[in-house]
Amino acid sequence: MFALTKDESEIFYEISYSNDNSLLLTDGKNNYLFTDGRYFEEAKAAAINCEVILSGALFKSAAELLRKERIQKLLFDPTNTDYSNYQELKKLSSAFLQPQKGILSKKRVIKTDEELKKIRTAVKLGKKGFKKLAAKISEMKKEPSELDLAYMAKECLTWKGSFETSFDPITAIDANAANPHARATAKKLKKGSLLLFDGGVKFERYCSDRTRTACFQDGFEFKKKQSFKDKKLQHIYDTVLAAQEAAIGAARVGMKASELDAVARGVIEKAGYGDYFVHSLGHGVGLDIHEYPYISKKSDDILLENMVFTIEPGIYIPEYYGVRIEDMVVLTTDGAEVL
Amino acid sequence: MFALTKDESEIFYEISYSNDNSLLLTDGKNNYLFTDGRYFEEAKAAAINCEVILSGALFKSAAELLRKERIQKLLFDPTNTDYSNYQELKKLSSAFLQPQKGILSKKRVIKTDEELKKIRTAVKLGKKGFKKLAAKISEMKKEPSELDLAYMAKECLTWKGSFETSFDPITAIDANAANPHARATAKKLKKGSLLLFDGGVKFERYCSDRTRTACFQDGFEFKKKQSFKDKKLQHIYDTVLAAQEAAIGAARVGMKASELDAVARGVIEKAGYGDYFVHSLGHGVGLDIHEYPYISKKSDDILLENMVFTIEPGIYIPEYYGVRIEDMVVLTTDGAEVL
Repeated sequence: MFALTKDESEIFYEISYSNDNSLLLTDGKNNYLFTDGRYFEEAKAAAINCEVILSGALFKSAAELLRKERIQKLLFDPTNTDYSNYQELKKLSSAFLQPQKGILSKKRVIKTDEELKKIRTAVKLGKKGFKKLAAKISEMKKEPSELDLAYMAKECLTWKGSFETSFDPITAIDANAANPHARATAKKLKKGSLLLFDGGVKFERYCSDRTRTACFQDGFEFKKKQSFKDKKLQHIYDTVLAAQEAAIGAARVGMKASELDAVARGVIEKAGYGDYFVHSLGHGVGLDIHEYPYISKKSDDILLENMVFTIEPGIYIPEYYGVRIEDMVVLTTDGAEVL
Repeated sequence: MFALTKDESEIFYEISYSNDNSLLLTDGKNNYLFTDGRYFEEAKAAAINCEVILSGALFKSAAELLRKERIQKLLFDPTNTDYSNYQELKKLSSAFLQPQKGILSKKRVIKTDEELKKIRTAVKLGKKGFKKLAAKISEMKKEPSELDLAYMAKECLTWKGSFETSFDPITAIDANAANPHARATAKKLKKGSLLLFDGGVKFERYCSDRTRTACFQDGFEFKKKQSFKDKKLQHIYDTVLAAQEAAIGAARVGMKASELDAVARGVIEKAGYGDYFVHSLGHGVGLDIHEYPYISKKSDDILLENMVFTIEPGIYIPEYYGVRIEDMVVLTTDGAEVL
């Protein structure tokens, strides 16, 4: 059965090439890529096992091919297809259009050995980036701002530009860390401040993702053991760490993702901070920084061998501070292996 | 009439705040923002003239409000609304959903004085970034690769992290420049090489965008006057520059955008390179790097006073080289003012 997608990661997974304006028609064996003149030459040279078709109107060209090849039924993912593209296709082709969430992106949920190798390298590069950033911050004579830290983080994660970040790193100090997806500001890092750093790097397009929360003081490092002067903060930190460790220890093949979320959430609720763990426990990581499986209360996903996902509980106290600890794991028959 | 959007720039334009998971319901006066727990505190503090509603299911919450407020008809942009979100809204609310392309984004097409000020600053920062990059390249002892150049470009454009780039800069050498949206590779910049540099910076969220193509030799600079040893390349360069100058000189209030595209395209066709100008002449720039008006063959847009857009003709010879020259202009009653 043919499926149609504009999603870059989905396209790359099928034909080892993508760009920001192309459309792939694929049944897993036969691949047709429609793209415009800016990318045509590059696509022809790089796309594997794929016919590349030059087009200034991608959906119109796809509809023509559907008619020519007499394709009667076409799957598409309604969560990454614009309403206007759906309408255009409906108008121009006679194929029956069937929405199916995750039709192509779920193919990537179990990682192959080759993918795992790339992910392990991305994680290793990311970890070294964390170390380099901590060393760099420790050496500074002036107090860096969150903006300075974000820039330094990029420098360390990308090895001065040899790699790409998985996403814009988050560098949040004290009260700013109470926003789980904080934007960097001019706020400065002072001795005794809390610093939350969430960052990752791509290796051959595969992402890594990691968060540490640390106290900026003598011997500053992004390690898991941290001591804060503020007793409540220390209790919160220890609770987040316990929740993460509990979830890492509990992950099993065949488990519901929602059950795993409940393990970490249970630890945090028991400590009285349930209302302050305002996001889900984790998400799959691969070609996309967020992909299947989704580790949340509402997820229907079942955890299987060779899935790769984050475990990242957090507690966020508005106007005071926020703590998040995040690692990536690969699920094996022995449980979760921390990457 | 109320409209609904998930688009960050559209949301920011209405309430001076946005994040990557929120939904705005607005009639231009009354604003309701639905967002999740990661952003709730930040949104309440920053959104102007807007009720912020905490929600783990944005479209469901919006549908509830539509029912409560008895809103009968709702506009949405079909080009930035997922099919699944449309279906969800249709199922959960009784409002009539009317697709209208650009319903909110077209509001930004004429820039206010305040917006123009920010754009001028972004352009100024971008220009300085080009100068700094040229100086930096000239000082290097080792031959930089495209990847090195891309990293250096980010450093120069962001003033070491004080600003954000408008998009990942393009740094393409010789044959790689034949792909208008080339990806950086390990290819090195040698004496006599052609270097195409396309980059921009954001100031208070407003973008700049600029491209220069230069010969890397003594006195290297990203200026418009360039001399290449290869006579055909020189002819191509001069043709692109003539096409750009013709378009800048021809732009008038009231003109069709497609006519302006035709002015530049005419110059390039006359020189015999019509098949090698594989993209449109330009695009609007503002909160988004690509927005209304669109300066292309097929555009229905009419050029009006205080629109800001790029004029960027190019000629791309596969396997040899590519040339593009791009400036931003603001349209005044006297014609196009180059920014």
